[in-house]
Amino acid sequence: MQCTESRIRVRYAETDQMGVVYYANYLVWMEVARVDYCREIGFEYRDMEADGAVLAVTEVKCQYRAPARFDDEVRVLTRVTDARSRTIRFAYEMRRAADDQLLAHGETLHAVCDRAGKMIRLPEKYRGFFSPTGLGSRIRNT
Amino acid sequence: MQCTESRIRVRYAETDQMGVVYYANYLVWMEVARVDYCREIGFEYRDMEADGAVLAVTEVKCQYRAPARFDDEVRVLTRVTDARSRTIRFAYEMRRAADDQLLAHGETLHAVCDRAGKMIRLPEKYRGFFSPTGLGSRIRNT
Amino acid sequence: MQCTESRIRVRYAETDQMGVVYYANYLVWMEVARVDYCREIGFEYRDMEADGAVLAVTEVKCQYRAPARFDDEVRVLTRVTDARSRTIRFAYEMRRAADDQLLAHGETLHAVCDRAGKMIRLPEKYRGFFSPTGLGSRIRNT
Amino acid sequence: MQCTESRIRVRYAETDQMGVVYYANYLVWMEVARVDYCREIGFEYRDMEADGAVLAVTEVKCQYRAPARFDDEVRVLTRVTDARSRTIRFAYEMRRAADDQLLAHGETLHAVCDRAGKMIRLPEKYRGFFSPTGLGSRIRNT
Repeated sequence: MQCTESRIRVRYAETDQMGVVYYANYLVWMEVARVDYCREIGFEYRDMEADGAVLAVTEVKCQYRAPARFDDEVRVLTRVTDARSRTIRFAYEMRRAADDQLLAHGETLHAVCDRAGKMIRLPEKYRGFFSPTGLGSRIRNT
Repeated sequence: MQCTESRIRVRYAETDQMGVVYYANYLVWMEVARVDYCREIGFEYRDMEADGAVLAVTEVKCQYRAPARFDDEVRVLTRVTDARSRTIRFAYEMRRAADDQLLAHGETLHAVCDRAGKMIRLPEKYRGFFSPTGLGSRIRNT
Repeated sequence: MQCTESRIRVRYAETDQMGVVYYANYLVWMEVARVDYCREIGFEYRDMEADGAVLAVTEVKCQYRAPARFDDEVRVLTRVTDARSRTIRFAYEMRRAADDQLLAHGETLHAVCDRAGKMIRLPEKYRGFFSPTGLGSRIRNT
Repeated sequence: MQCTESRIRVRYAETDQMGVVYYANYLVWMEVARVDYCREIGFEYRDMEADGAVLAVTEVKCQYRAPARFDDEVRVLTRVTDARSRTIRFAYEMRRAADDQLLAHGETLHAVCDRAGKMIRLPEKYRGFFSPTGLGSRIRNT
């Protein structure tokens, strides 16, 4: 399965007094990478929200392997590992661009919700993007 | 003029690789202190937003005097220095609780706006809170 | 096993355009709760760092059950679920104080490291705090 | 005087429940833009820190003109407006790339400090970068 790549330059704001990136910021990078993923497979995430469907995070896992540091360029490799009518799962790998060192890997599970937070089916218009012929994985009805 | 006091414990997340609090986080503390200020003078800021009036920041200034560090307890002293029908100005002093060391001081200027971002007059209901008999300063029509 | 409780008031800065708390911020609350946990069982986390031992996060999981909103008061219930000579696992439950609604639960796994990031054994001085007679769980040698 | 340009894509994490970018995040963008500025005029800011000289922020001002929104591309135009032996002042203009709308403008004043936070003179090695023949402004002794 294909994946997309995002490039992120570590901000000073993202470091903590240990001299490395604070652990919660990897989740922000996952979000940046998800939005890039959507753009690359053919739609803007903000348009999907404007159409009334949001991808609410219901679960996140992250394993930290090596610390990212200020000014490092980080590659975030993103793919969809499961896509159903009401949920989508993304997996991420974060690597330092300079030496390909694995920094962290993780995943997020999302429920498709309307703006009020009620679970809905992914709108027809966006299903193709996560289909076997797209970059994403197979849509299964649940 | 009276002022309110907020107490904030510095979070690890708020430090940077210099071992001190990252400069943008002082603005977050100003926000926490403003919300406390509203509560103390008699209303909940979230109710004012629910009533359709938001205090959009139009200007901020901050002068940094000494660094705050992880786990420091910080006192934020907040007062209104000017209140007009469409704008409110807050001033803040941030001091380390342990030794009263001045860490930073600053101010924010706010425009009263509706949820669409259009400037409006402060709703009648909230004017009294910023009146001479309240904790805040005198409301003047502009 | 006993647990400690932290109270956190949701900051405006912590919300996103969905009108709820952005998912990465729950990890910041976990950090605040961990530091409170250490304080409550008898030491200051910053002293442990000054003594050359840091608790580097190696894994985090969080499951989101209901959204936290601006100005909500959140109770974070924290306990140690495993403590070995080189690793400590914390578990967290986040509940809205007003109605005890479960917002999220999660856990973090930490490696005891020196300031250079090398794994070390938890210094003798801090072992008792995580012992069966303390608030924490049993220390096992690994 | 010349200026450098940084491009920043607004992150979901940077928005708040008003649906616009939270005000403190503009200061993070200023930092990103400063680091880019240093890179463009010929040195890496992290090397300057490694050489023992940091640019500690002593003052910041920001005026907000129009809200930035999720996924907007923002251009940050950065220039040095004053450079002395111990202080450097930067000015910033933030514009929405799509329509050149001015979003905010501001400035930061920095003291050159050693890692302990003591004010020092800008190391010889870095003075040329802020000289009249560089991109920056004239170095004056103070």
